[in-house]
Amino acid sequence: MEKTITLAHGNGGKLTHELISSLFLPAFRNPALEAGADSALLELPPGRVVFTTDSHVVTPLFFPGGDIGKLAVNGTVNDLAVMGARPLYLSCGFIIEDGFAFSELERVTRSMAEAAREAGVQIVTGDTKVVEKGAVDGLFVNTSGVGVLRSDAPAGVASIRPGDAVILSGTIGDHGMAIYAGREGIELQTSLQSDCAAITPLVELALSASAGIRVMRDPTRGGLATTLNEFTSRRPFGIELDERALPVREEVRGVCELLGFDPLFVANEGKLVLIASPDSAEAVVEALRGHALGREAAIIGRVTERAPGRVYLRTLVGGERILDMLTGDMLPRIC
Amino acid sequence: MEKTITLAHGNGGKLTHELISSLFLPAFRNPALEAGADSALLELPPGRVVFTTDSHVVTPLFFPGGDIGKLAVNGTVNDLAVMGARPLYLSCGFIIEDGFAFSELERVTRSMAEAAREAGVQIVTGDTKVVEKGAVDGLFVNTSGVGVLRSDAPAGVASIRPGDAVILSGTIGDHGMAIYAGREGIELQTSLQSDCAAITPLVELALSASAGIRVMRDPTRGGLATTLNEFTSRRPFGIELDERALPVREEVRGVCELLGFDPLFVANEGKLVLIASPDSAEAVVEALRGHALGREAAIIGRVTERAPGRVYLRTLVGGERILDMLTGDMLPRIC
Repeated sequence: MEKTITLAHGNGGKLTHELISSLFLPAFRNPALEAGADSALLELPPGRVVFTTDSHVVTPLFFPGGDIGKLAVNGTVNDLAVMGARPLYLSCGFIIEDGFAFSELERVTRSMAEAAREAGVQIVTGDTKVVEKGAVDGLFVNTSGVGVLRSDAPAGVASIRPGDAVILSGTIGDHGMAIYAGREGIELQTSLQSDCAAITPLVELALSASAGIRVMRDPTRGGLATTLNEFTSRRPFGIELDERALPVREEVRGVCELLGFDPLFVANEGKLVLIASPDSAEAVVEALRGHALGREAAIIGRVTERAPGRVYLRTLVGGERILDMLTGDMLPRIC
Repeated sequence: MEKTITLAHGNGGKLTHELISSLFLPAFRNPALEAGADSALLELPPGRVVFTTDSHVVTPLFFPGGDIGKLAVNGTVNDLAVMGARPLYLSCGFIIEDGFAFSELERVTRSMAEAAREAGVQIVTGDTKVVEKGAVDGLFVNTSGVGVLRSDAPAGVASIRPGDAVILSGTIGDHGMAIYAGREGIELQTSLQSDCAAITPLVELALSASAGIRVMRDPTRGGLATTLNEFTSRRPFGIELDERALPVREEVRGVCELLGFDPLFVANEGKLVLIASPDSAEAVVEALRGHALGREAAIIGRVTERAPGRVYLRTLVGGERILDMLTGDMLPRIC
């Protein structure tokens, strides 16, 4: 019979401690975690501390290009990185359904450990809750993160000026469409892969290439269009995107057209979008292209004086289309 | 028709932003949150940073003496406080079921804001996910926390010596039995109340009263017996508890006897247990009794050379009983 997680693994008692000492400690091993207290004592370099959180409810748990564990680590790492922080420490909160396969929890844990190692962060504190069958769909993972602000962190949205360039590190829509295909069992799109990755190296390359970076974000839920709207919302400038410049993989475009999705609103999990001063844009694109994750980096648009507060798309045929934030939700549980 | 949370409130787009600006921002208002980025930039006093996380899955969401919001704030505040840290900043991750009443989310949010104000912490970053009906039982809340270590923080478990006193700030079992009564609709026990509270004031009083404090904890899931086992586990000392000295409310004892629960294994959410040097014990108890949350503080046992690694209870009738960590789970989803 398959070994499963039971309610007693979440009672804070004997089985919780066994789960920690037999699974989480060996996988995540680090001094803070080994101290065995309910809180972790951090070693931090000088600099202002940055703090973030994300819960992950993605379904399926395992998908082409990643799984909930890799996503949970990289999602929080990226939220810190785009603030201009060095991601350093993560927490990990599991909520598990009674009867969940132990082997799947092991797989997710190993995946988190590997992603953390790759991103250069440590998982230093955690929590495990188990709820009865039907009270949660399998497994949810919260990761919160702590980092330290780099001295060259961007000044933020308020520093954006008309004429600035909008730069994207690569193709859009890969994560969302890979999840969708995984969920629906679409077998045709064997090449559809989530872009799930830590974008810390891209952030470092961009910041090293130029002091002209105004703001950075990872365009996740809601897609690129929603993220750009967060920049323009209630601001005295607009953003014009050039559809011809937008990198979209053929297979992503194909599935989107088939199903009626717009890649501009589909989630990404390994992309960096940033706004840079006009004179620094080329250098930043060049720097991003120096990394495997940024090969297809491109200037995709400009900050404009016209249409303040708005994001609009100059289409392939020369028309114009307003891009609002995502409204409905055609792809729930994407992250 | 009642206003409810929909999948689109969790898509990261327009409705997510409206939820933030209309509900979370006004309730939690602070500069870090208002900056509107995915991460919060913290203002921290000098000192080592402490980091912790807890997911909350309690059912029912509202119970005598508290609710999931108050519990989520105080649980994380207490995890920081017992490390000897000043709790300063919290994150808040909601996972909500499609169709959840907006009024209940408002009630939980207001409760979190009030608990945060009382505990002197700010909720500075958050995340909201909405999942389809049946994928989560109503509402789960993760809170992670950041604090700064006090200069008088206890040295920890390694500093415990035989002869030390075990001190408890008040009655045990109140939270667990209040939840149980709320869940089962037990109407008789109208006086059963959760002890849910921030124990920061107790921690401050104890640390100010004496430099002889070895270690502090909040005995939550698994109860007092499990927490004490965490102290003795793989250590060259045991702990002897005196049943006569254990404060248990009459109504808690009554319900426990009726249902076959042992209050030593029932969760508390507003209690402090600590180990102090023999010469400082009386002063610490005195100090704790100076606060409303510590009126019934008492020395409940001693650290012993005999029975290393073990916790044992000297019973009312003079017998002895080994107390292990909690094994089964008779009260799941207690926090």
